[in-house]
Amino acid sequence: MNENYQTNTAELNLDSFVDEVRSLLQRQRMVEGLVTKQAGPKQEVLEMLTYRQHLAEMQNRLASRHPADIAFVLESLPMEDRTRIWDQVWKIRGGAILLELSDNVRKGILESIPRDELIAVLKQVSIDDLSTLAPSTPRDVLEEVYQSLDSQSQQWVVSSIAYPDDSVGQLVSHHFVTTRMDRKLEEVLIELRGKDLPPHLDSLYIVDARHVFLGVLPVEHLISKDPSTEVQEVMNSSPVVLSPYQKATDAAKAFERYNLLSAPVVDERNRLVGRVTVETVIDFLRKQADEDALKLAGLQGEEDIFASIWASARNRWFWLGLNLVTAFIASRVIGIFETTIIKLAALATLMPIVASIGGNTGNQTVALIIRGLTLDRISRNNIFYLFLKEIRVSSLNGLVWGGLMGLLTMILYQNFSLGLVMAAAMFLNLLVAALVGVGVPLLLDRLGYDPAQGSSVLLTFSTDSMGFFIFLGLASIFIL
Amino acid sequence: MNENYQTNTAELNLDSFVDEVRSLLQRQRMVEGLVTKQAGPKQEVLEMLTYRQHLAEMQNRLASRHPADIAFVLESLPMEDRTRIWDQVWKIRGGAILLELSDNVRKGILESIPRDELIAVLKQVSIDDLSTLAPSTPRDVLEEVYQSLDSQSQQWVVSSIAYPDDSVGQLVSHHFVTTRMDRKLEEVLIELRGKDLPPHLDSLYIVDARHVFLGVLPVEHLISKDPSTEVQEVMNSSPVVLSPYQKATDAAKAFERYNLLSAPVVDERNRLVGRVTVETVIDFLRKQADEDALKLAGLQGEEDIFASIWASARNRWFWLGLNLVTAFIASRVIGIFETTIIKLAALATLMPIVASIGGNTGNQTVALIIRGLTLDRISRNNIFYLFLKEIRVSSLNGLVWGGLMGLLTMILYQNFSLGLVMAAAMFLNLLVAALVGVGVPLLLDRLGYDPAQGSSVLLTFSTDSMGFFIFLGLASIFIL
Repeated sequence: MNENYQTNTAELNLDSFVDEVRSLLQRQRMVEGLVTKQAGPKQEVLEMLTYRQHLAEMQNRLASRHPADIAFVLESLPMEDRTRIWDQVWKIRGGAILLELSDNVRKGILESIPRDELIAVLKQVSIDDLSTLAPSTPRDVLEEVYQSLDSQSQQWVVSSIAYPDDSVGQLVSHHFVTTRMDRKLEEVLIELRGKDLPPHLDSLYIVDARHVFLGVLPVEHLISKDPSTEVQEVMNSSPVVLSPYQKATDAAKAFERYNLLSAPVVDERNRLVGRVTVETVIDFLRKQADEDALKLAGLQGEEDIFASIWASARNRWFWLGLNLVTAFIASRVIGIFETTIIKLAALATLMPIVASIGGNTGNQTVALIIRGLTLDRISRNNIFYLFLKEIRVSSLNGLVWGGLMGLLTMILYQNFSLGLVMAAAMFLNLLVAALVGVGVPLLLDRLGYDPAQGSSVLLTFSTDSMGFFIFLGLASIFIL
Repeated sequence: MNENYQTNTAELNLDSFVDEVRSLLQRQRMVEGLVTKQAGPKQEVLEMLTYRQHLAEMQNRLASRHPADIAFVLESLPMEDRTRIWDQVWKIRGGAILLELSDNVRKGILESIPRDELIAVLKQVSIDDLSTLAPSTPRDVLEEVYQSLDSQSQQWVVSSIAYPDDSVGQLVSHHFVTTRMDRKLEEVLIELRGKDLPPHLDSLYIVDARHVFLGVLPVEHLISKDPSTEVQEVMNSSPVVLSPYQKATDAAKAFERYNLLSAPVVDERNRLVGRVTVETVIDFLRKQADEDALKLAGLQGEEDIFASIWASARNRWFWLGLNLVTAFIASRVIGIFETTIIKLAALATLMPIVASIGGNTGNQTVALIIRGLTLDRISRNNIFYLFLKEIRVSSLNGLVWGGLMGLLTMILYQNFSLGLVMAAAMFLNLLVAALVGVGVPLLLDRLGYDPAQGSSVLLTFSTDSMGFFIFLGLASIFIL
């Protein structure tokens, strides 16, 4: 429902809006500075008026915008400016804006606003949205807002919070419209006339007297079919139906696969619980894609650009520390061969190439396997095939690139056996990369861990240690 | 429009369907084997009948499924089995299935089917879908299908193909419904009655006599508002409007931000060109997310799990080759210090730790910056702030982890200056990682390249070479 807000072609890109708010903030700050410096009473009144005028201008600019735009501006500003903007918008649309913010920024704002203000804001939002905000809200505030709800809403909030994390239950909205099988379309139309319909209503849900779900009536049918038709003649009695306990990712995949705009959610006794809409699914997919990208890079979670140094450092420490441990162990492998290296320093020069090519090619394999797992393309039927394929690709690469590098080494160091060892080590380390690259994500997935989170560190550990070991080991046997 | 296909709760997970098809294929192949082996005529007839029966069973199972499910099965099977399935489904729904396939698998199938079959399949699809399939279709086949269209459709196909890659024009559908401002809602309803409406119609578009776009009438209004109201009283005259030349990513962001189900597309003279729907946007987002994940890992594109070894190897060569070049250069940096290493082999053991911690922390920074660029959170106003922040985080990490590692080195090697050099090198390489981690993606983005594609290789190159250089350089100055 963007109809009340200004959103037009020119502003798909919000940069200019952010710039505008930023310069308004700057002017405000300048005027404030003047007010405190200049003490003359006449001057003071004048400045006060200018200040008020600036404030009004800002409020005007913000009032016309969609809550998502204001959330975007908040995310693009440092904490201090966020508070300034928030102070001017929370009374009317604080709840809607909170919902559009990313988790970390929302948390920051929730922590900075007074208790009463927070309660007022939470009372603005629908109970669907209250469930969304609940996890980041202090317990006592939530309690107070909860007490102000009627008992049906209370029950709704409790049940939606109770569903497991990342389940369909977390995405359910209770804005839906039901009707009965034996109604005529014209009767349904009369019933709906003048009602405040849920946004993006693409279908009505058909239930019986005990609220058991029977099917779906697409809204188009209300418009295009003969009004004297009965609902049961045109209804779809086998649509995609979700359970609140299903994984949200599975539901999202169904939305993508079958181009759904919404799907009914029913409990174990087939009674209608609610409705999941495509907007919620898009938000869920976006959040998941963001998290995956950051996890792969070894970050624990979303990081607010304007987070404190301390918070940012902590977000990166776990994987950094783990990486340090694995790098240390890999380095101990080299330590074993220190006497060999003293005899032929070229080994120290060449060994990072062997490790690096293994890490690079292994990470390609990891990315493909993780993607295959995400898209459900990998099952016990093709695991063997996958191993075989990656080993073959790696062998081909080992022959081509290992051979090339071996040749280059021979020429560069005028040492035939060093070249052979280089070629053999690269070939073997590429095989290690293939086996670990397929095996580690599959193993993590089987053990119930997220393969995106740890695969890359484990892979690099293996290709580094094994790369050093194979290369230095072969060298100490065949060259020295 | 999943109403005609069997899609229910139990089958959100398609594994069992794939298994079933796989076992049907196996039985088919077994029977075929028997037919050719056993020559007795009576036996032959019997086997032939069994074979036919199996074929019919398979066809039955496939016929009831959504085209997306069949596409999923095709993607999960090796090429030979794909052809078997395709032969049984193309006549009725080949076009719909092709549309659901990923680019690479689709290309494989298009290359394997005879020309006449392809033409027949392409004639099944709507002209919107024909534009989607056009890039992967041989020119002469396209020509023949094109000739069979009426002139309006021909014009449409030509114009949609002409829009730039990844522009909104590539996503436009011409299935929309228009009406006029001065109509009453009841008149509109009468007009629509009995018509075959486009799927997921959430709003009608209001145009004038010259087809100039004036606004949007949400379908809900047709149902909930008083039928005697005129369209112009309830229409939304400033919805989000797209231009066919805008970037598809910007349009997708608008869909996410404003929770759109569809958006009108107008040309430079404000005349209605078509409609972009949320299904198209979801497909676009999914494709983009997949590509980004693979690009980050150094793959050139999507890779069919069942692609040939040769095709898979080629998909990985560009970045593998580049990585080999950068690893070679980094190794030459070590080469400069070979005489130093001969004197103190511990340097060879410790140097990969310095390089590794730089690469790890730098890649975290790269991931955050790429994400910031994707979400439009980075502008010239906060670039300086970002550099400063990453330098601070890196300094903190350098002090903590560098100090720890320095201490460990002192203890391990009983060498005070080696410990100091280790700590200093780690601190400095973390600063390199921060500067390069912020700078490289920003630079690639500014130069018009995709930061996801090259940042990681360039970063690892810098942190490796600089890590080796700083560590070995400091050691040769201060220790030897």
